[in-house]
Amino acid sequence: MEPLNVVLTMRPAALAERLFDDAAHRRLAAVAHVWPEVLEDLTTPDAAKALEHCDVLVTGWGAGLLTDAVMATAPRLRAVVHTGGSAAGLLGPAARERRMTLTDARAANGRPVAELTLALILLAGKQTLPSARLYAERRAFIDREQAFPQAGNHGRRVGIVGASCIGRQTIELLRPFDLAVSVFDPYLTDDGARDLGVHKVELDELMATCTVVSVHAPDVPETRQMIDARRLALLPDGATLINTARGALVDTDALVAELVTGRIDAVLDVTEPEPLPADHPLWSLPNVLLTPHIAGSMGNELSRLGDNAVAEIEQLARR
Amino acid sequence: MEPLNVVLTMRPAALAERLFDDAAHRRLAAVAHVWPEVLEDLTTPDAAKALEHCDVLVTGWGAGLLTDAVMATAPRLRAVVHTGGSAAGLLGPAARERRMTLTDARAANGRPVAELTLALILLAGKQTLPSARLYAERRAFIDREQAFPQAGNHGRRVGIVGASCIGRQTIELLRPFDLAVSVFDPYLTDDGARDLGVHKVELDELMATCTVVSVHAPDVPETRQMIDARRLALLPDGATLINTARGALVDTDALVAELVTGRIDAVLDVTEPEPLPADHPLWSLPNVLLTPHIAGSMGNELSRLGDNAVAEIEQLARR
Repeated sequence: MEPLNVVLTMRPAALAERLFDDAAHRRLAAVAHVWPEVLEDLTTPDAAKALEHCDVLVTGWGAGLLTDAVMATAPRLRAVVHTGGSAAGLLGPAARERRMTLTDARAANGRPVAELTLALILLAGKQTLPSARLYAERRAFIDREQAFPQAGNHGRRVGIVGASCIGRQTIELLRPFDLAVSVFDPYLTDDGARDLGVHKVELDELMATCTVVSVHAPDVPETRQMIDARRLALLPDGATLINTARGALVDTDALVAELVTGRIDAVLDVTEPEPLPADHPLWSLPNVLLTPHIAGSMGNELSRLGDNAVAEIEQLARR
Repeated sequence: MEPLNVVLTMRPAALAERLFDDAAHRRLAAVAHVWPEVLEDLTTPDAAKALEHCDVLVTGWGAGLLTDAVMATAPRLRAVVHTGGSAAGLLGPAARERRMTLTDARAANGRPVAELTLALILLAGKQTLPSARLYAERRAFIDREQAFPQAGNHGRRVGIVGASCIGRQTIELLRPFDLAVSVFDPYLTDDGARDLGVHKVELDELMATCTVVSVHAPDVPETRQMIDARRLALLPDGATLINTARGALVDTDALVAELVTGRIDAVLDVTEPEPLPADHPLWSLPNVLLTPHIAGSMGNELSRLGDNAVAEIEQLARR
């Protein structure tokens, strides 16, 4: 079996060091010749030399487009292994026409988002941040039953907006807990909902019946500002809105208007715009936790994406 | 089969309404006669009347002691069903001598603690609160790889101090995640560690090798301030200490000294003393999340304790 010729492309090239640890490099070396330089640009003469014998292109964040000109320099290329969520946007016409194996790290990339979402859901159920706020204000004993009679994660109904890859992973992670899950997704069938063990509802009903709502829809024209003023008003008092997806899914002004009343809480890992202007009210509202887009793969989680790519290449090598 | 005579005692009596919902009352009514009044005091003539035919005493937080005098008024009493963690402290000499069935809600009561701990571990791994702090300071784009290169929940080593009922439930909840778990517990055997799927270590090694450490030891003389200045100094930079157990397990002054340097973070649901004096530095340190003892059963989680008691009574009724 001839080893595969593998080329890596991403920007910055140093990202590759975060994706592939020593163990990953050893696994790769067992089945492939890896071009020593990580390409930041696919259009240079050096890149053409790398691509000339390339069987598998490993793409990462910041990778350049596989234009027809680039494809012409890569006659043997038969697989694109993406280390991010989706490589579809990278392919030009010739790349789409050539019958190549395309793989991505959608599930691996979504995993940390689902994990953080789970943590934020459990935190919200326990009224963790509101109780910390009240404690810091009073600096005295808090009767938790009196202050937070509705708290707890036993039988709480959680709303998941979007049975996307990340939404589904979140639902899976919620399984060990005594939480009821409602899902809104226009493409979710009754059978699909039954398989997931969730209650399928319309978005308005979800907003009105769930005390923790987490958004996992794609950012497409139909979903822009789907969480608008009217729907935010449907949320029960004391509810928490979690957004680890895209800021555009929520009407930011409407959210601010609802949050300033103190009626609901929000955890926002994404905003529209992002980052917010320095004088934006969301920075200083006490009932908001604003995090800097950390839900996705970061730090040691990048090696999960690299490991995923290595596993794909091992599979390709066996064919 | 004659229905059991069941008496409830706790203080305040209204707690019973939080423990037993309508469904629980229906299940109870199917197997037992429940004394209509919830006793706050077992030593009154009214209580003696309730106890005269009582087979099963359901005890809750604030229940009075089962002194010998009380036991003398309850000749038929053959079971004490506790809705809290442990009823051992409620029994006087005669109660201990009589062969009674004793049950408690240790596991059900510990469940919410383990759940919140899981959430806090995942949150710590993602550097959620430090990143929110940095974001609020800068109010600008944060390069997460540059700011938090060590973040993430892929392959992180988590330390669990104490394989107690709650420690074990936490370990169980950590199973679906790509986290390595080290445990210190002087009573944990090698076989026990293998069954739990954890790495058994001494406390010093745990502190030195884990970037998230969660304390789940009992509060006994041997464990007082077991997390002291020397051991806190062993924690890696950027580590998070989580205490949902008892404040006495940690040397508060030593913790403050470590926290003021900004070297580590802490999430403290319990403190020594509790609450802290109003001018205590822990109230205002940015790298501390102080919550008002919310990890245990609260709000809707109380009905899990009630359901647990109902299940025990159903079992007793079948004997």
